[in-house]
Amino acid sequence: MPGVPLYELQMIGTAVFAVTGVLAVNRRGLDVFGAVVLGGVTSLGGGTIRDLVIAAPVFWLSDLNYVWVALVAALIGFFASRSFVSTYTLLLYLDGLGAALFAVVATEKVLGLGLGPVVAVIMGVLTSIGGGLVRDVLAGRQTLMMSREIYATPVLLGCTLYVLLRHLGAHHQAVGIVAGSLIFGIRAAAIRWHIEMPHWLTSDHDPNRDSGV
Amino acid sequence: MPGVPLYELQMIGTAVFAVTGVLAVNRRGLDVFGAVVLGGVTSLGGGTIRDLVIAAPVFWLSDLNYVWVALVAALIGFFASRSFVSTYTLLLYLDGLGAALFAVVATEKVLGLGLGPVVAVIMGVLTSIGGGLVRDVLAGRQTLMMSREIYATPVLLGCTLYVLLRHLGAHHQAVGIVAGSLIFGIRAAAIRWHIEMPHWLTSDHDPNRDSGV
Amino acid sequence: MPGVPLYELQMIGTAVFAVTGVLAVNRRGLDVFGAVVLGGVTSLGGGTIRDLVIAAPVFWLSDLNYVWVALVAALIGFFASRSFVSTYTLLLYLDGLGAALFAVVATEKVLGLGLGPVVAVIMGVLTSIGGGLVRDVLAGRQTLMMSREIYATPVLLGCTLYVLLRHLGAHHQAVGIVAGSLIFGIRAAAIRWHIEMPHWLTSDHDPNRDSGV
Repeated sequence: MPGVPLYELQMIGTAVFAVTGVLAVNRRGLDVFGAVVLGGVTSLGGGTIRDLVIAAPVFWLSDLNYVWVALVAALIGFFASRSFVSTYTLLLYLDGLGAALFAVVATEKVLGLGLGPVVAVIMGVLTSIGGGLVRDVLAGRQTLMMSREIYATPVLLGCTLYVLLRHLGAHHQAVGIVAGSLIFGIRAAAIRWHIEMPHWLTSDHDPNRDSGV
Repeated sequence: MPGVPLYELQMIGTAVFAVTGVLAVNRRGLDVFGAVVLGGVTSLGGGTIRDLVIAAPVFWLSDLNYVWVALVAALIGFFASRSFVSTYTLLLYLDGLGAALFAVVATEKVLGLGLGPVVAVIMGVLTSIGGGLVRDVLAGRQTLMMSREIYATPVLLGCTLYVLLRHLGAHHQAVGIVAGSLIFGIRAAAIRWHIEMPHWLTSDHDPNRDSGV
Repeated sequence: MPGVPLYELQMIGTAVFAVTGVLAVNRRGLDVFGAVVLGGVTSLGGGTIRDLVIAAPVFWLSDLNYVWVALVAALIGFFASRSFVSTYTLLLYLDGLGAALFAVVATEKVLGLGLGPVVAVIMGVLTSIGGGLVRDVLAGRQTLMMSREIYATPVLLGCTLYVLLRHLGAHHQAVGIVAGSLIFGIRAAAIRWHIEMPHWLTSDHDPNRDSGV
């Protein structure tokens, strides 16, 4: 995306995900090393899995700025967590911004590799939510798969819109702004007005009937 | 396997695993997006990890039919879960059929790549149970590692028989039927007669003495 | 490392990790198959993830001795667990030795591939702790990320010292002994005197305030 500071935006997304990753698990009593690992996993994990699956070189191996940004941001998140608590809602919004940015950049990257629109959408979603999933698994938290929060669905919609508009010939810069705004807009609305997934799209929680497969 | 509709059977296995994957976690209150992701992970996850480890191209990247079948099957499983409950035992059998099929196909694939019989057995087992493991981790369920259900052991036996018979020169079609029948037969017997692993092959459950490594 | 039996030491590390991996989860009531899988994951998992990320061939595919050693050691750990209980502290020390060895070998391997000192440190830590993390996730245990035990920090320090001394031109054999001794020494001291991470490097555990990201 010539003309927009895409690289800088990606770094902001990395920093935001590292900070929110630490804050999400920080009250569980982890040490500074664990915080750095989980912050790093949150911000770098999704893209790492994406690159493994599409057989591309893992992106941070050749540009360690991603690692340094994640490291410093995770440390800041760890030591400054007390003051962050009061601005926690702000961080939810920043997290939504990071999700939008990662989704759009990954979708464009995979389209550019000629892997087709379906793989691009899958990898956009995977990059955006994969790091948080691995973090939650390592931290023993319930993953977002199991919650009614509206988090992954706008990413899916945005990535789908992205490949559709690109297929119609639109410029990736304009498409990125439109699709990213859609993702962030839905997520921000869900945060602001506490919107959850509608019941007909959610199964009932009935732990007594959990099956045995 | 010319002469048998292997590709069609694989698609049936994919669909069955996607449905059973959704049903296994559906009573925990997940939304439709989570259901699709967990159904997809169950049916595509094992083969994805296998392909990563043996450095083969991830199989569904070049044949999106796997993705579409998993998607549609997961959606069906999600919305039709009420009617499926009454036929849940049928699904356990179908799941055993899917496990047998995935194990045999993966073992043959890895043998064909010249990676040797031991790697072939490991990858057969990994393909057959890997997707369900990742699903359970993401869904916060106890993995089958921690249960006395007879699930992975017949897969190990079947894959071992497969490479032995192939080493003796038998045709892969015949071997696939024999080994697959062994896997499905043991699994079906375990479901039918509620057979569990014998006690001398199981450690005692004593949570109070859980160690600290 | 000509002159030292590096290969043999690696095999000892593999065996030790397989045994400690089984013992760590053995009281949760798993069967012999689960024990072998979790022992194998503990001893081979970290190096597998490392090789995937740096796009190297997975190390045990071309040398199945690693698999056989892990298999036999896991079986020994499973069936001999009663007698091992009395020597559990010895196993903690052996586990620390395995961690030191894996860290040093992986750091040297990645430096030798020309991937630079930062990636080498990351991969040294990942190789050393990755297998135990995956084991704990599959077994439903709290991962070491979430504990105050001093486990990963000495590995980080040792790998950092390793790349520093190598950068100054020291011979890898000498550096391996120095860095490995540092890792094992700190870990052994933590086991012997029950040293935990200091409070200012640990967040307070307050589950009631767990956040919602």
